[in-house]
Amino acid sequence: MTKRTVIRGGTFLTMAEGAEGTTAFAGTLTMRGDRIEYIGAADVEVAPDDEVIDGAGKLYMPGLVNTHGHAAMSLLRGLKDDVSLQVWLQEYMWPTEAKFTAASVRAGTMLAMLEMLKSGTTTFMDMYDHMDQVAEAVEEAGMRACLNRGVIGLCPEDVQRAKLDEAIRFAKTWNGAADGRITTAMAPHAPYTCPPEFIAKFVEAAHELNLPIHTHMSETAREVEENAAAYGVRPVEHLRRLGVFSRPCLVAHGVHLTDEEIDILAEHGVGVSHNPGSNLKLASGIARVTALRQAGVRVSLGTDSAASNNNLDIFREIRLAALIHKGVSGDPTAVPAGDALRMGTVEGARSLWLNDVGTLEAGMKADVVAIDVTAPHYQPEADLVSHLVYAGSGSDVTDVWANGKRLVRGRRCLTLDEERIVAEANAALRRLKA
Amino acid sequence: MTKRTVIRGGTFLTMAEGAEGTTAFAGTLTMRGDRIEYIGAADVEVAPDDEVIDGAGKLYMPGLVNTHGHAAMSLLRGLKDDVSLQVWLQEYMWPTEAKFTAASVRAGTMLAMLEMLKSGTTTFMDMYDHMDQVAEAVEEAGMRACLNRGVIGLCPEDVQRAKLDEAIRFAKTWNGAADGRITTAMAPHAPYTCPPEFIAKFVEAAHELNLPIHTHMSETAREVEENAAAYGVRPVEHLRRLGVFSRPCLVAHGVHLTDEEIDILAEHGVGVSHNPGSNLKLASGIARVTALRQAGVRVSLGTDSAASNNNLDIFREIRLAALIHKGVSGDPTAVPAGDALRMGTVEGARSLWLNDVGTLEAGMKADVVAIDVTAPHYQPEADLVSHLVYAGSGSDVTDVWANGKRLVRGRRCLTLDEERIVAEANAALRRLKA
Repeated sequence: MTKRTVIRGGTFLTMAEGAEGTTAFAGTLTMRGDRIEYIGAADVEVAPDDEVIDGAGKLYMPGLVNTHGHAAMSLLRGLKDDVSLQVWLQEYMWPTEAKFTAASVRAGTMLAMLEMLKSGTTTFMDMYDHMDQVAEAVEEAGMRACLNRGVIGLCPEDVQRAKLDEAIRFAKTWNGAADGRITTAMAPHAPYTCPPEFIAKFVEAAHELNLPIHTHMSETAREVEENAAAYGVRPVEHLRRLGVFSRPCLVAHGVHLTDEEIDILAEHGVGVSHNPGSNLKLASGIARVTALRQAGVRVSLGTDSAASNNNLDIFREIRLAALIHKGVSGDPTAVPAGDALRMGTVEGARSLWLNDVGTLEAGMKADVVAIDVTAPHYQPEADLVSHLVYAGSGSDVTDVWANGKRLVRGRRCLTLDEERIVAEANAALRRLKA
Repeated sequence: MTKRTVIRGGTFLTMAEGAEGTTAFAGTLTMRGDRIEYIGAADVEVAPDDEVIDGAGKLYMPGLVNTHGHAAMSLLRGLKDDVSLQVWLQEYMWPTEAKFTAASVRAGTMLAMLEMLKSGTTTFMDMYDHMDQVAEAVEEAGMRACLNRGVIGLCPEDVQRAKLDEAIRFAKTWNGAADGRITTAMAPHAPYTCPPEFIAKFVEAAHELNLPIHTHMSETAREVEENAAAYGVRPVEHLRRLGVFSRPCLVAHGVHLTDEEIDILAEHGVGVSHNPGSNLKLASGIARVTALRQAGVRVSLGTDSAASNNNLDIFREIRLAALIHKGVSGDPTAVPAGDALRMGTVEGARSLWLNDVGTLEAGMKADVVAIDVTAPHYQPEADLVSHLVYAGSGSDVTDVWANGKRLVRGRRCLTLDEERIVAEANAALRRLKA
């Protein structure tokens, strides 16, 4: 029987359903193997070979979930900002990304995982190229991830076919790998980068492989207009007709949506990964999060890549989500703190089709994050959910477990060599620029 | 002659005028007494009694400036969030504040200063009551502050008179105190909380004492409408007629402004303290920062109090300022990173009428902040201004000097007893709730 970990004398936030989930309480948590065995106010009897952790001064909560990103693009953080989207893409992002090798993807992904882990994210969605490198990196880091080969279909048919085959091979190879920490999805990049018949092939493959679909959708007003001009319908109806929503589906962004489109998403159980930081920085607009949630659409949070954010701290997206919808609507009750925190934890897990992740409950996977709540910005002692959302950040994270394994201890990553990753990321960027 | 401090082998950002000010360079900085003696790329010869600091892995920049807040209200952080403004004020803030004693103000202010210092703020504007306590606390902490007794005039004439006298006595007593670190201003709280004739008395006093004026203005649409209904003009014209702009003046918020009002502010050199976090959280709206800056109005950044923010980290306001105006306008070039950083440093200092603070230049006051730029979110090495604004936060601050004195070393505050301040803040809140 594997060793048990016992966290005693800590404060806990389960994020389980109902008001109790967002009410912090003093208590104990035990985990064994990859699961939480017990969590509650009562103490437990400690056995001689238990690993006992003193939880004083710490708040324990579920690991955060980042539902949209491109980890490898961390190499491009700060390469260029504050220019028009076209200049940014055409003069900076695309020419540099075209030079990306498998080694650059590994270096960028390792840097991204280091940043995510240290700021409390245990699960992430990743859409990129050279995905075998990403999957191997996830296996090493100990994180949980839903990985997908994002395919742009603006190319000849034989190249399209090769990319689709690669996406299928990757999805089959890695689904359920790394003790189940890795799952996969099919990912046509976006309606504006994939011809309709090519998107239909992804839907077909997703049905055959019984996999979900992840794609970008309605990020900018321009792409929505162009979709309507090219196909006679806006992106939501376009994707619906292509059968994309006949699979479990998560769309990234969903900034420009009509009431009718929101109803279609709700009807088909399509999730929306809200990326407030990236949407603001690229001036794409502000998603209708309140309307989406009112219609019953599941909304989670994503950072997008560090090239457009420019960080991977989900706490910052949680705070943005809690702030901007109030400011824009004039309603200070919009997206309350507890809802924003759910979007970054349990709603994120459900959006990635993970039902045993995202809350601290007996029987759930042991993805646990410890927060130092002794810092001045967590004082005085009041509502810890409010403090986390409005005053906290990923910098307050001290310890992280994923799948029952400790990955961060006292702000140091145990599975990743921090100095080496930083050096390799810088070396990889120099090679790209050479 | 006082001992010299020499920081060698560091990276520096001066924030001086022109493109050079936002271009980081490797070099050396020396300070003696309360001033910077030298900053430049060249090394200096070190004398035996110099204090020499190895700047490797650190970025040194001017201390941040917070141009609007109510420090003592840190005691109310997280007391209540996500309710309507009226419920928040009438049921939570005002009843609790009514019980504030001089001791509560001291406890809350100490907590606020601890948070500000550790996140790199060296100068702050503070408007509150029991200001002698605040001034004494600033003297102890070693910070720089522009302090003002914020007066609400919804009371009988004799009480008004007593408050005005107290504000005058405070402003005279403390202006220039603490080796010049403390300056003062006259502060009628807002046009909607002070009758016109009472505001006029503050203007008169400000002229007599040769002091600037600080006030809240046009924070919510409702107060603007009510001002127009009560006095026939919107707040800007109302304050102009009362002579408020005949003094150097800084208004907080300025969310709801017409083009004509912006022109009046520009014409009279009135500064606007932009408080994006608080304005979003209270659903007040989004200030027209791009229009203000284009019209030549000096815009700086404030956190407002921790009751409505709920943190005092100016880096977060810098990031919000750089993000939200892009998202709302659809223009990704709005408020570029360098401009946002200027708003949080040199523009903040100028907004508080401090001409020898806010940049790292020889002869300026030695208010210096060190940032750990080895962390993953500062990688790869690229534009440090971009990294600071879009990826950084106050948690990256490791060391702080103000007026040439080291206040924070290795993330520990040297002038303030952290554990005691945290304990006293919690005790003060318990007394308020009792």
